[in-house]
Amino acid sequence: MAGNAEYDAYREDVVGRANVANTAELVDYYRDLEGQGAGALWTVANKIEPWQPSPPSIPMLWKYAALRPHVLRALDLVTPEKAGRRVVYLVNPGRREAEAAVGWLYTGLQVMGPGEVASSHRHSASALRFIMEGQGAFTVVDGAEITLGANDFVLTPNGTWHEHGVREGGTPCIWQDGLDIPLMNALDANFYEVHPELQQARTEPVDASTAIWAGPGLLPAGQQWSRRYSPMLRYEWAPTYEALCNYARVSDGSPFDGIHFDYVNPVTGGPVMSTIGASMQMLRPGEHTRAHRQVGSFIFHVAKGAGRAVIGGRRFDFVERDIFCVPSWTFHEFVNASASEDLCLFSFHDLPVIRALGLYREEGYGENGGHQPILS
Amino acid sequence: MAGNAEYDAYREDVVGRANVANTAELVDYYRDLEGQGAGALWTVANKIEPWQPSPPSIPMLWKYAALRPHVLRALDLVTPEKAGRRVVYLVNPGRREAEAAVGWLYTGLQVMGPGEVASSHRHSASALRFIMEGQGAFTVVDGAEITLGANDFVLTPNGTWHEHGVREGGTPCIWQDGLDIPLMNALDANFYEVHPELQQARTEPVDASTAIWAGPGLLPAGQQWSRRYSPMLRYEWAPTYEALCNYARVSDGSPFDGIHFDYVNPVTGGPVMSTIGASMQMLRPGEHTRAHRQVGSFIFHVAKGAGRAVIGGRRFDFVERDIFCVPSWTFHEFVNASASEDLCLFSFHDLPVIRALGLYREEGYGENGGHQPILS
Amino acid sequence: MAGNAEYDAYREDVVGRANVANTAELVDYYRDLEGQGAGALWTVANKIEPWQPSPPSIPMLWKYAALRPHVLRALDLVTPEKAGRRVVYLVNPGRREAEAAVGWLYTGLQVMGPGEVASSHRHSASALRFIMEGQGAFTVVDGAEITLGANDFVLTPNGTWHEHGVREGGTPCIWQDGLDIPLMNALDANFYEVHPELQQARTEPVDASTAIWAGPGLLPAGQQWSRRYSPMLRYEWAPTYEALCNYARVSDGSPFDGIHFDYVNPVTGGPVMSTIGASMQMLRPGEHTRAHRQVGSFIFHVAKGAGRAVIGGRRFDFVERDIFCVPSWTFHEFVNASASEDLCLFSFHDLPVIRALGLYREEGYGENGGHQPILS
Amino acid sequence: MAGNAEYDAYREDVVGRANVANTAELVDYYRDLEGQGAGALWTVANKIEPWQPSPPSIPMLWKYAALRPHVLRALDLVTPEKAGRRVVYLVNPGRREAEAAVGWLYTGLQVMGPGEVASSHRHSASALRFIMEGQGAFTVVDGAEITLGANDFVLTPNGTWHEHGVREGGTPCIWQDGLDIPLMNALDANFYEVHPELQQARTEPVDASTAIWAGPGLLPAGQQWSRRYSPMLRYEWAPTYEALCNYARVSDGSPFDGIHFDYVNPVTGGPVMSTIGASMQMLRPGEHTRAHRQVGSFIFHVAKGAGRAVIGGRRFDFVERDIFCVPSWTFHEFVNASASEDLCLFSFHDLPVIRALGLYREEGYGENGGHQPILS
Repeated sequence: MAGNAEYDAYREDVVGRANVANTAELVDYYRDLEGQGAGALWTVANKIEPWQPSPPSIPMLWKYAALRPHVLRALDLVTPEKAGRRVVYLVNPGRREAEAAVGWLYTGLQVMGPGEVASSHRHSASALRFIMEGQGAFTVVDGAEITLGANDFVLTPNGTWHEHGVREGGTPCIWQDGLDIPLMNALDANFYEVHPELQQARTEPVDASTAIWAGPGLLPAGQQWSRRYSPMLRYEWAPTYEALCNYARVSDGSPFDGIHFDYVNPVTGGPVMSTIGASMQMLRPGEHTRAHRQVGSFIFHVAKGAGRAVIGGRRFDFVERDIFCVPSWTFHEFVNASASEDLCLFSFHDLPVIRALGLYREEGYGENGGHQPILS
Repeated sequence: MAGNAEYDAYREDVVGRANVANTAELVDYYRDLEGQGAGALWTVANKIEPWQPSPPSIPMLWKYAALRPHVLRALDLVTPEKAGRRVVYLVNPGRREAEAAVGWLYTGLQVMGPGEVASSHRHSASALRFIMEGQGAFTVVDGAEITLGANDFVLTPNGTWHEHGVREGGTPCIWQDGLDIPLMNALDANFYEVHPELQQARTEPVDASTAIWAGPGLLPAGQQWSRRYSPMLRYEWAPTYEALCNYARVSDGSPFDGIHFDYVNPVTGGPVMSTIGASMQMLRPGEHTRAHRQVGSFIFHVAKGAGRAVIGGRRFDFVERDIFCVPSWTFHEFVNASASEDLCLFSFHDLPVIRALGLYREEGYGENGGHQPILS
Repeated sequence: MAGNAEYDAYREDVVGRANVANTAELVDYYRDLEGQGAGALWTVANKIEPWQPSPPSIPMLWKYAALRPHVLRALDLVTPEKAGRRVVYLVNPGRREAEAAVGWLYTGLQVMGPGEVASSHRHSASALRFIMEGQGAFTVVDGAEITLGANDFVLTPNGTWHEHGVREGGTPCIWQDGLDIPLMNALDANFYEVHPELQQARTEPVDASTAIWAGPGLLPAGQQWSRRYSPMLRYEWAPTYEALCNYARVSDGSPFDGIHFDYVNPVTGGPVMSTIGASMQMLRPGEHTRAHRQVGSFIFHVAKGAGRAVIGGRRFDFVERDIFCVPSWTFHEFVNASASEDLCLFSFHDLPVIRALGLYREEGYGENGGHQPILS
Repeated sequence: MAGNAEYDAYREDVVGRANVANTAELVDYYRDLEGQGAGALWTVANKIEPWQPSPPSIPMLWKYAALRPHVLRALDLVTPEKAGRRVVYLVNPGRREAEAAVGWLYTGLQVMGPGEVASSHRHSASALRFIMEGQGAFTVVDGAEITLGANDFVLTPNGTWHEHGVREGGTPCIWQDGLDIPLMNALDANFYEVHPELQQARTEPVDASTAIWAGPGLLPAGQQWSRRYSPMLRYEWAPTYEALCNYARVSDGSPFDGIHFDYVNPVTGGPVMSTIGASMQMLRPGEHTRAHRQVGSFIFHVAKGAGRAVIGGRRFDFVERDIFCVPSWTFHEFVNASASEDLCLFSFHDLPVIRALGLYREEGYGENGGHQPILS
């Protein structure tokens, strides 16, 4: 049966699994089926029903020191008018065809120069920004201008008109974009529109959404917000860091993730957007978490401090502004190598999708005190 | 038919309403029915189906200056052991039989002296505290000790073990209690238990719940809180006031209520407890709101500043710490009489009940620019 | 202290309960408080915080044989124009002031003659009908005409325009009305309107709602129903009885309630209306359920068969069409005395209220095999 | 720039879109980025952000007459022990790498012979069966045996142990399987287990779930079902068809889909499983629906009658048991060509996913009376 290896390549000699060897008659049968737009399940059953998830994404670390010059160079190489957005996007070798950094998540580093303003658009993809450096950047979301400061987490939810810019007198600004463009395409659900007037009018005071929605345990009385994303569009760094410190004062947090918050929609307590969630966690000086794995894909951004991760048995050392990913169902653990400074990791992920569909699972690494051996 | 006025007292000469005059035959019939544990609907239909709510509660203002000496006197008159709790409770003349201040809401002023600790209990009624004066008070709720500071809003939800005390070295402390004891009795749903050991063990750091749950737009990752009340048990005054100021900076707020927050369960965005909601609102210097009426009963506490309310056409002037009530479907409007200081009103109410049952309505006062004439 | 018994009438000599004896000084104090619209909590604490619910309602049985002549007599005594509705309503001796049959539930027996049509109205109260006898009756709910057959369960939800009638050529028709008028009044939430044209136009085919919404495990695709009551307005007896028989074929049902269905809103699986639920249960020949008690008030209607109930230790024997009530937190058990015929009990209750507010509890009767001793 | 077409292949000369021509400097830059696991967004932006969904799936029709002999032949070609399941699965030419029939949906025709029983397994994928022909087939789901009759719709939800068989004395049985295996793999969320004892014990009466949960507007009182799939596992054809006829008697149904029901979880009114929905629709004799398109992928099965569909401008004629698919955002319309017999179409789809993520849209075909021109 040489040349027909595709038909019995996935055999497993296990009760309850497909284990059919090729015969000449069977190969003829398979080819007949192909001619009908069909196939024999047992030739692919073990492939499409693996014992556990085997993601094509691989763990990756992108060093900001290496990427930054390329990002800045885009300021000179292309105009915003021609490029639309000047973004260096990150590619997972296992997800190249989906333009994804991990799973169905896209991420990139966007740069804008002083006085620049991009044109306004909207799309089915949900987008977030995590601000890295520079002065004077802003985003406008459905008429609301939002100031972008370092380590702020900002939403541009699906379906909202949005555009970015940097004020005259500012400096070149870089932020990380996170979107679920690949998922929208995978689900055949991606729509895109350019704003008819290219720029939006401002309809409310700058940073109003945070002023209204960020009160602790407070919501505007009688509010009627019913959209599926958070009305609070900017989660500022200073109060987030203060909240991490408060939490750390009264709790050890999670053995897997330390002091760990989800950013939430204050109206529901649920994720900030329907298809992307985001979190911020703190590892205290010297903290080494236990490994676990989860159904879900994660992109991390080192917001403060330095340390390392072990992901799928591989060690990745990182410093502030580095970016790395954790594929689904892959063991991962973190180390804050500093004896004095805390380590803060921002992350975004597809857990809202996984949870909405009832697919979440997690599992701690049971051996060796919860720590993976490092693959050499 | 003299002597049988009860049978045709509610007649209305309107199509679609009952309008049956007594006859000798009918009165005999009515008496026959009474003998069977029955009655004729048309003799009471117009009474039990009014055109709109006609609450038995009346608008009331309780002056703290008058009540405070009585509250403090309770420290000398009774012991905590004999009294259980030393509370002066407020009685609405129209709700005396239910021991309610308005509708089905109970409220009272509780006092404790330094070094005193009450015994622990739990009940079906939901309880809240709004702290008025004194140093050193605390509450323990299901093992969690909570510090009570002036204008803090604190929960002791239904079904939780709770007890109060004042530390040695503190001062006499007074706070307002708000409970739905009358509603629990009306619904034949009130259970009460004394803690088997009279005092609870502390099981977590002091004020931990606020440290964990009060982050703006943040929740502990992977939290599993599913009880029907907020896990955040103390809503501190300082960040609440800061949130009011932030909101006021970007919005005019509500024409009826000014800058107006609901205290919420951060896990759901819903009310802090299933049967009692609470709010805090700010009227800016000189602000005079327009009148409206709502289905729902409200008890207000003047947290900061002074001013007046017009409730059902009657004027009530108040200063800090005064307490007043607004019965259901009664027009009310507020005035901050100060030209320089803001006015903050804490309130609690039964809107979670009214909304859970789909009964909420509201209506603005349409005439005279939204302001009621004052009844003389 | 003669004459002041009200102040220490509720003393309990139990740690954690109020136990303050009157003194002259205290009585003076109490009277001072009364003058301020206030009172001392410890004088009433044990009364308003009972160890468990002590409902004022008492178990009652109303015999249809006794009531029916009175109901029919109303046809002659009053006109629909003058009476609005000709209803004999049932009064619980403990709930007379609320015009309630138990708790906050109203019920009555309504009668109409051939060719009569009542005027249309709507109100905050939720209403249901359980049809007892006669031919040709109908209800119109928001333009939808509904045929009323014996043992059908029919909704006229709160806020819907509705009116009843009997077709020319029909017979005098009697049905049971169930409403939460007393609850709406208690919550100060009751509104009432007469239809501006007194009669509604029909806007859809007769009995359309059942044709559309009663498919087993089926709902109209893409339906957008979002009101808080069931779009299915008539639950017919024949398929309900068939469902009881199907369920009984594969299950023993509940030890407390036998084969027991709730009528539900098919769009949500929840109760048919926000404030009143309804159920139908079958006890097989000879079945004697175990006693339990629940937070919630119930009115039962014997839809088929005969038997008895023991409620709060009192025995009530009933036949088809008799009506009885079970107050909150009162033990109750049922007996189907027939060796050959099944017994079907319709009931309606306030469990949707109790559950929406998180107050539901139940408890089996632990002794004597689950059967209460009969009080003599 | 010959040879670098991949970098500017997606240029669009539209304001707000990427439109950067290759230069030698840029191509160098792109290659540098590739070496870093990165890329320039503007080279792919227009590709990954299309103006509207452009699904890789194509409309397909699979004729049962052609497939059936191949399906039956599998009985002879492979044993259940070796093959696991004898299934001919249907392949969309645009989705071959995902083994999907459309979008992320898998479907196949399974056959079993008399006396055969498959081994029990469970997986993350949700599965459904639509029964086509044969006598004596059954499925066991978590201990519950379910009889499979023609046109019955049966669930084997994700995470449930399940196995199929045909009773001794039955005939060869064929049914359609529908699963979301491709989606589970795409989401890196697929787990698979073989039952430790290969066969399950029966723990309840045959077809109990339908006997309990299929009452119209009825649910077992006090039920606590909280899993994310329907407890009703079999939706029988006879009452489904009766419901279609009832609905058709009082309504014209949808202009796009005729008389159209979703199969629902009776406990929630929501879809039968979290990730796959199913529907049944009837087109009356001669009915020709208007075209519309939806975000979502659909597989149709002709349950009764014959007719045709126009999908994306292509005409497909079908008879009973044929299967066809409609890709996302593709216009489709149906014709019942018979003047006397109704046409019933079963379908399953990913709308529960699309809706859970807030991505649903639909649009009617506006021109030509709602009918697409046929592409030649």
